[in-house]
Amino acid sequence: MQTIVIFSGGLDSTVLLYHLLDEGHTVKTLCVDYGQRHRTEIVHAEAIARDVNVPFQVADLRSLSPLLQGSSLTTGTIDVPDGHYAEDTMKATVVPNRNMLMLAVATAWAISTQFDSVAYAAHGGDHAIYPDCRAAFTAAMNTAMGLADWHKVALHRPFVERTKSELVTLGAQLQVPFAKTWSCYKGTAVHCGRCGTCVERREAFHLAGVPDPTAYAADAFPIEAILNKELPG
Amino acid sequence: MQTIVIFSGGLDSTVLLYHLLDEGHTVKTLCVDYGQRHRTEIVHAEAIARDVNVPFQVADLRSLSPLLQGSSLTTGTIDVPDGHYAEDTMKATVVPNRNMLMLAVATAWAISTQFDSVAYAAHGGDHAIYPDCRAAFTAAMNTAMGLADWHKVALHRPFVERTKSELVTLGAQLQVPFAKTWSCYKGTAVHCGRCGTCVERREAFHLAGVPDPTAYAADAFPIEAILNKELPG
Repeated sequence: MQTIVIFSGGLDSTVLLYHLLDEGHTVKTLCVDYGQRHRTEIVHAEAIARDVNVPFQVADLRSLSPLLQGSSLTTGTIDVPDGHYAEDTMKATVVPNRNMLMLAVATAWAISTQFDSVAYAAHGGDHAIYPDCRAAFTAAMNTAMGLADWHKVALHRPFVERTKSELVTLGAQLQVPFAKTWSCYKGTAVHCGRCGTCVERREAFHLAGVPDPTAYAADAFPIEAILNKELPG
Repeated sequence: MQTIVIFSGGLDSTVLLYHLLDEGHTVKTLCVDYGQRHRTEIVHAEAIARDVNVPFQVADLRSLSPLLQGSSLTTGTIDVPDGHYAEDTMKATVVPNRNMLMLAVATAWAISTQFDSVAYAAHGGDHAIYPDCRAAFTAAMNTAMGLADWHKVALHRPFVERTKSELVTLGAQLQVPFAKTWSCYKGTAVHCGRCGTCVERREAFHLAGVPDPTAYAADAFPIEAILNKELPG
């Protein structure tokens, strides 16, 4: 199967990349640059793709930023909230319609190069927070992607029923180079250890019982506070 | 209703704009620049939007051109075919996944500005040619657009069961300034009168019995040849 992987260089999509290679897919990676301020992830993504000799392509959507106002991921003026993901406080980190945009671009590339599927790493832990990670959304997109052109493209979302800690377990089995992946939303020199995605990352390693090789900032939340849900948000 | 109109400055989307204004929608127009070589249409689109005092926004997707190879609409190396639309010869004019891309961008803008619908001018005449104008595709996209975010966006496609000549009839009733609209795929100084969209435009005016104010090039196909299907393709 020839598959385009929507690839951010984060933990989830890196496990997905290794999983698809392990299953024998012919893979190309697509990294969407929507003007995120944690641009560090693009550098990490390219290095990881190079490690496994897989084509790496950036889709530059920065020109859409006038249409994508309101997210703390793309503006410098809204603070990234600390703490556990919680619906009210974390809506601020949503890029409007990010997944539909990424899937539309990946589908266009699949059609123009005759690849037959697009994979992305939406997983169980995302469900409560992001509507466009839920199964109903991905099912509708799969239908639309299969009807958009004479060349049919399928949406492959193997992790949609898994939790993030299950992805860590799978990644450890597949020898994913976790230390090279980048999750933090803040784009500082090391993972901040305080934003929602850093907290989820630490928690997932702990729950999976896999050593966390990530370097976190000195003021990162203690793992005990994360596990006991003693965080803001 | 607050509606974003996907707007190219062509005949179909201009009739749609006038139709929505007539129905009382609050409207913003979104013109997608995917590197089409008939860039004339963007100039026409902006002038038409200005005429009716409606906001006009370009979504610049030219940076995606490395991913959208293969269409004669975006490259200078493939000729735009002449003649009636026919599946085999006109596939060359398809921008891969154009409608999903346009709908994804419009939905993002609707979410970020709390508009409640996106309208586009897919119509009956498009069905046979472009898969992403068919009702099944638009229905799947409508479902996905309603699930992509906490803020629900609906897809409005009032012309999906109408022919292009019916749009001309409606446009004439609404006093659409047809002469200001641009259809031609070739981007020459006047409408070429030979490409698929010019042929459809002429035919639609004729079938509707509405005077065609379009200036066509000297070597345009004669209207009799168009009506008798005596064209290449």
